[in-house]
Amino acid sequence: MNPTAAILVIGDEILSGRTRDSNLHFLAQELARVGIDLREARVVPDRHAVIVEAVRALAGAHDHVFTSGGIGPTHDDITADAVAEAMGVALSVRDDARAVLRAHYDRMGVEMNEARLRMARVPEGATLIENPVSAAPGFSVGNVHVMAGVPRIFEAMVAGLLPRLTGGTPLLSQSYRIQRGEGEIAGPLSDLAAAYPDLTMGSYPFQQNGAFGANVVIRGADGARVNEAMTRLAALFPE
Amino acid sequence: MNPTAAILVIGDEILSGRTRDSNLHFLAQELARVGIDLREARVVPDRHAVIVEAVRALAGAHDHVFTSGGIGPTHDDITADAVAEAMGVALSVRDDARAVLRAHYDRMGVEMNEARLRMARVPEGATLIENPVSAAPGFSVGNVHVMAGVPRIFEAMVAGLLPRLTGGTPLLSQSYRIQRGEGEIAGPLSDLAAAYPDLTMGSYPFQQNGAFGANVVIRGADGARVNEAMTRLAALFPE
Repeated sequence: MNPTAAILVIGDEILSGRTRDSNLHFLAQELARVGIDLREARVVPDRHAVIVEAVRALAGAHDHVFTSGGIGPTHDDITADAVAEAMGVALSVRDDARAVLRAHYDRMGVEMNEARLRMARVPEGATLIENPVSAAPGFSVGNVHVMAGVPRIFEAMVAGLLPRLTGGTPLLSQSYRIQRGEGEIAGPLSDLAAAYPDLTMGSYPFQQNGAFGANVVIRGADGARVNEAMTRLAALFPE
Repeated sequence: MNPTAAILVIGDEILSGRTRDSNLHFLAQELARVGIDLREARVVPDRHAVIVEAVRALAGAHDHVFTSGGIGPTHDDITADAVAEAMGVALSVRDDARAVLRAHYDRMGVEMNEARLRMARVPEGATLIENPVSAAPGFSVGNVHVMAGVPRIFEAMVAGLLPRLTGGTPLLSQSYRIQRGEGEIAGPLSDLAAAYPDLTMGSYPFQQNGAFGANVVIRGADGARVNEAMTRLAALFPE
């Protein structure tokens, strides 16, 4: 069994329609590559109690929870506080995190003020996640991995974090394009899916030049089984 | 108080990284326009029990739940069954839904088979949501609005559905671009936010040509208050 995971995207700007999230899609692709099964995603606003509840629910249900957003220096950055509360541990400025920030600000010639120091606050027992873009670290506490919302920083943090986690069998998938409407292929496809309970088969309709078609995706951990099912699918619906 | 809402995106293809969802972002923008507050988003796989649980949780917590995906004719389209179970009502082929489909297939010269007839199954007491793209309707049952996952169809269904729902006060927002790092503006911004508890202020950092900056967004229902706070913000951080 592969480890399971959820992503929690935190930020009013996603729910208000101001910003289109890209971290969910990026993480989904990265996790598929290393064999961690992304089972759920949630987006919640910048509200302490809501974040605490979501972190608790997801951390209890999955092997890993990845969060995105809310770890900057401004008043609306409340993720660290909420995660610490959800995990039942204290939050305080830690020397190693402060040293990372101080070195960065020294290089840039700006002072370390109170707001910037907030970004050195880390829950007790956490492991830092490196931020090669703007220094302020993310952290892992228990099975919760807390990262920045800015896509470039989130992506860099994921690249640093994933090699630390134990993956599983990457999900293999093959896709087959069929130039018939879903209503036409649904019956035979359903029978095929029933014959391969160890695989999942998804049908994704499209319309092109007025004609209906569907991309059928077969996914599974065993490449030989995926091949076999794909061969039968192609025989059912020759090009 | 504005009505509240959640969106539930259903589909393995989003969590596997195959497809990047766009319905969440589209709906967020549309709801902001009509004054319905989107409070939460979830993405779940094509698993019956998981969908049932998510629909129940969200329908109990919000005035409206909008779902996307899983209402086509293939075996992986299980949303209607799951929503009917979550709402505790029966699901069966309904004459008006069947008539809509039959007219569409007659026009296209294809037969109404068993798979296509599945798309006429509607929970007891539901109201149909028109599908001007490919006929197969969505439906509203209780406070749950079930729509297709294909973006073009989802968007057309939302356009038909929203005028039926009672909106609230649209959230107004203004944005101000500040050419300083978040660590610099965080202190004064926090004081300003505390002085306007009826507004929300979000800070969204960016980096351009090596320099750090932030877009500060002030949101609220009262335009005069948003104006006033924005004037004070601009005075704090002149261009």
